[in-house]
Amino acid sequence: MKRVLIVVVAALEERLRAKIREAARTHGFEAAFYESDAQAMDHMADAEILLSASGELHRHARALRWQCTPSAGVNQFAGGVGEAMLSNSSGAYGVTIAEHIVMVTLEMLRRQQDYADVVARRAWTRDLPIRAIRGSRVALLGTGDIGREAAMRLRAFSPASLVGFNRSGKNPQGLFDRVETRVEAVLPETDIVILSLPGTPETRHLLDETRLSLLPDGALIVNVGRGNAIEERALERQLRAGRLFAALDVFEQEPLPPQHTLWTCPNLLITPHCSGNLTLPYTRERVVDLFLEDFENYCAGRPLLRRVDLRRGY
Amino acid sequence: MKRVLIVVVAALEERLRAKIREAARTHGFEAAFYESDAQAMDHMADAEILLSASGELHRHARALRWQCTPSAGVNQFAGGVGEAMLSNSSGAYGVTIAEHIVMVTLEMLRRQQDYADVVARRAWTRDLPIRAIRGSRVALLGTGDIGREAAMRLRAFSPASLVGFNRSGKNPQGLFDRVETRVEAVLPETDIVILSLPGTPETRHLLDETRLSLLPDGALIVNVGRGNAIEERALERQLRAGRLFAALDVFEQEPLPPQHTLWTCPNLLITPHCSGNLTLPYTRERVVDLFLEDFENYCAGRPLLRRVDLRRGY
Repeated sequence: MKRVLIVVVAALEERLRAKIREAARTHGFEAAFYESDAQAMDHMADAEILLSASGELHRHARALRWQCTPSAGVNQFAGGVGEAMLSNSSGAYGVTIAEHIVMVTLEMLRRQQDYADVVARRAWTRDLPIRAIRGSRVALLGTGDIGREAAMRLRAFSPASLVGFNRSGKNPQGLFDRVETRVEAVLPETDIVILSLPGTPETRHLLDETRLSLLPDGALIVNVGRGNAIEERALERQLRAGRLFAALDVFEQEPLPPQHTLWTCPNLLITPHCSGNLTLPYTRERVVDLFLEDFENYCAGRPLLRRVDLRRGY
Repeated sequence: MKRVLIVVVAALEERLRAKIREAARTHGFEAAFYESDAQAMDHMADAEILLSASGELHRHARALRWQCTPSAGVNQFAGGVGEAMLSNSSGAYGVTIAEHIVMVTLEMLRRQQDYADVVARRAWTRDLPIRAIRGSRVALLGTGDIGREAAMRLRAFSPASLVGFNRSGKNPQGLFDRVETRVEAVLPETDIVILSLPGTPETRHLLDETRLSLLPDGALIVNVGRGNAIEERALERQLRAGRLFAALDVFEQEPLPPQHTLWTCPNLLITPHCSGNLTLPYTRERVVDLFLEDFENYCAGRPLLRRVDLRRGY
């Protein structure tokens, strides 16, 4: 019986398809590629392995033993993938999200939205007071792939400090000046706080009204992890009061509903959850390389490196 | 007779004024501070030293021996400052302009203007193809303070290459993979070209139509130096054709006239020459520190470190 590997990733380059096809062949698999769930649906019966972000396709794949999602987050898999193992692509998004983090941080500090208004009016205002990463106290809540890649880049801007926050207190590669396990120990001395936390019960509303109040006046919050890590209503009040600034790529509800009050909130840069999707060629290549690494593990009967523990949430 | 040092820098913090006042007193000078040329005009008669960007005030200061401009560029001093020496504040702007360079580079690569349009429509488009600094071939035309500070930051993003261009071929601090003295040797292999060149006869239209054509399709040009380093009309044609992308902070004519066709040019991010002004506290502090360094030199009869050679243009 043929062994089937199905890939449902839109716009995957032929070069990357060939890489998967070749690895599949080596291990006696046949690889099939589809652009969408709808297209793949009728071809799932024999699938043993599935590379897809869908939380639904596995229902049509009775022979499925392993699904790898090209996403880092796994919220769409709350109910699991039947009897199969689930792995994610954690580690594929650090580079693109770190570039996003530096970009939006600078846009907020340098008032680039205000300058866009100036330019839209064809005016020549040049004297808006700005701030810099240099000399700022930066905290990264979450020191995984994203937090580490961001830290490496931010370090080159000579911040006054670069502090990490995680559960273990471990300082990966010594990238941080120090790592705290209590967020209260971080916030009062932070000018720029960057969240790249997974969506777990523990991170839900980590930054609630009380903790947001610990931040100094004028602090900037950048969230690229999960929207519910911040109590959005409390944040919105402090943004509207001009006490805090934020660049949010993730929200408690996505898409952000058209009538949501955040759309008109001042001191806020909204991006539509685009910091870490598959639109960067480098990211697509990383997803494929990480998948193939675990494909080798799978075929050799070794544990998957990026297997997801759904009780833990990542 | 009292010796007079006059400072005409708007919104200078009291802390920085005190620093100047104290240094002046030590050397038998009296320091006076004004917010504008108009305010300072009637007090110039006894001025021996002037810290001001004005190309006019020196005409009212018959006793002037040294003017330091808080700017890096000196185009407003084409006619000199009478019998006095002129120095500039080259070295004060590298940090703020480097942060600008990284910001606009990422905004263009990640299509942040297109995403701003998406957000303005309250839409949730997430799939615009983007690019990254990581893996890009970067060239810095100009390896002075700005080019070096930019190179240090860009290096942290893991570009495929980081090439410098200057007159001497010297590689400052080994920051660049290599340094070229012929721009034709740089352009064909460059995805992102960053100009921080002074305004001199040699840099005028350095990137003319022929040289612009050497850049590969899709290349991004960032200009923070002088507008006339690029043949603007030729660039505009290639932007409108979608062949090149640009982020321009400087222009052949400034302010950019309201009827100028660049205002509506696609594939272009315009900023109103705000990359390196005095609106960042760190920059103001650097200007004062560099001035005081040369003030010590002046008082000790040593040559000024940042004396401008007007024939050379910087």
